[in-house]
Amino acid sequence: MGTSDIISQIRKKKSFLCVGLDPDLDKIPQHLLKYKNPILEFNKLIIDHTKDLCIAYKPNLAFFEKLGNTGFETLKKTIEYIPKNHLIIADAKRSDISNTAKMYADTFYDFFGVDAVTISPYMGKDAVTPFLVKDKYVVLLAATSNDNASDIQNIQTQSGLPLYAEIVKISKKWSNNQIMYVVGANKTDEMKLIRSICPNSFFLVPGIGHQGGDLKSVCKYGLTKSCGLIINVSRSILYADSGNEFYKHSRVVCENIQNEMKIELDKIGF
Amino acid sequence: MGTSDIISQIRKKKSFLCVGLDPDLDKIPQHLLKYKNPILEFNKLIIDHTKDLCIAYKPNLAFFEKLGNTGFETLKKTIEYIPKNHLIIADAKRSDISNTAKMYADTFYDFFGVDAVTISPYMGKDAVTPFLVKDKYVVLLAATSNDNASDIQNIQTQSGLPLYAEIVKISKKWSNNQIMYVVGANKTDEMKLIRSICPNSFFLVPGIGHQGGDLKSVCKYGLTKSCGLIINVSRSILYADSGNEFYKHSRVVCENIQNEMKIELDKIGF
Repeated sequence: MGTSDIISQIRKKKSFLCVGLDPDLDKIPQHLLKYKNPILEFNKLIIDHTKDLCIAYKPNLAFFEKLGNTGFETLKKTIEYIPKNHLIIADAKRSDISNTAKMYADTFYDFFGVDAVTISPYMGKDAVTPFLVKDKYVVLLAATSNDNASDIQNIQTQSGLPLYAEIVKISKKWSNNQIMYVVGANKTDEMKLIRSICPNSFFLVPGIGHQGGDLKSVCKYGLTKSCGLIINVSRSILYADSGNEFYKHSRVVCENIQNEMKIELDKIGF
Repeated sequence: MGTSDIISQIRKKKSFLCVGLDPDLDKIPQHLLKYKNPILEFNKLIIDHTKDLCIAYKPNLAFFEKLGNTGFETLKKTIEYIPKNHLIIADAKRSDISNTAKMYADTFYDFFGVDAVTISPYMGKDAVTPFLVKDKYVVLLAATSNDNASDIQNIQTQSGLPLYAEIVKISKKWSNNQIMYVVGANKTDEMKLIRSICPNSFFLVPGIGHQGGDLKSVCKYGLTKSCGLIINVSRSILYADSGNEFYKHSRVVCENIQNEMKIELDKIGF
């Protein structure tokens, strides 16, 4: 999927929402447990009722691996069910030496058919380049939304930049336009600094909803003239309700977010 | 598995060898392809002929995930086949926000039953602590053996330490004795500095053999009075030969390494 395809989907849907697929057997509506594959059933209902309101899906590998032997098949079938015009990001946070990284890239791109993979930057360029295949994207961890992210990410380096900014600067040499960055919604200072280093890159922004981030401030610091933002929401959408028609509640949460997104896009005349 | 159990295995076998399980369908002896599960057959033969010479096995997740739907089952059966007195390290290089990290930890410890998982430090303490379960180990990436590792890991920080050393220093506050560190065999300067910060921690050392590292220099900078080293070798053992009795060649490679290890342990009167 080319960057222009992503931008055109955002324009068409007036949305830069990514629905995070973190399906947890303990949290999905319990009436689904009667199905042979409750997680797949849950994912399909979520996709059916959100696909016109979002431009991306982000399955989180941990939740599929937790299923054991059936996890990979469930993930593959979930991905096959997602309409082709959506960006599919495997949230796997991989990083390994080059021959192993190539192996992961083959699995994600060839076996699963995703468009992007989240990658940890700690091992450097040769752990990232195997994922830089034509029309695919590396989503590099920059400033993550978790409580202790700053333990490491905000270490001050001798260049004067905090580590996350130094890494973003270095990673710009690895690819022209195939690297996106993970920047938490609660990391407004970090977002401002990263945006100044990468005026045009896409940010994948987790942390809205359950983790307390605010859409308006994300837009204030992250929005570009080509949008430049993909905001991920998982739990508040997936677990909006536990009744038989839980997906209607999930849809309402998406509609509310998409309405806010439309207002922000209208403001900049996108 | 307690640290004293690891040390006692090293003492008994006069070996601190870890056999890396990176089984690749394109590289295993082709006569194995007649079996229903060639990779499992290959792993079993490797384990049968190396288990008395090594104290640990390190399955690399990428090579199992590459198998698609059958990968997890193959990994589980491989792990079940490893004798219980071996340390089993899942080489997965995971890192995620705490609820997701907990999910990964459950999969690795409860479903697969491994003793340790390799973890990337970039997301900080709360991405690591879910893996610090009693008698389990986090093997934290410090100075990895790949070509471009220094891109990020050797960034100079304002404290005067390079990043990898600063991270090791910070991570010491996360656990007393359940964190081991990945230090490449080719990273002698890094090993020296990390050893000065962690005089007693175990290092998992990749990069001997195929990647060109040298056992003697690793021992010179890494060996402690309780050994403190687990040296991983993958490709030179696994792919020592492609004939019907490939495992005999694998065994000879292990014997040679174990002989060298015995000499080094004898030198320090271990």
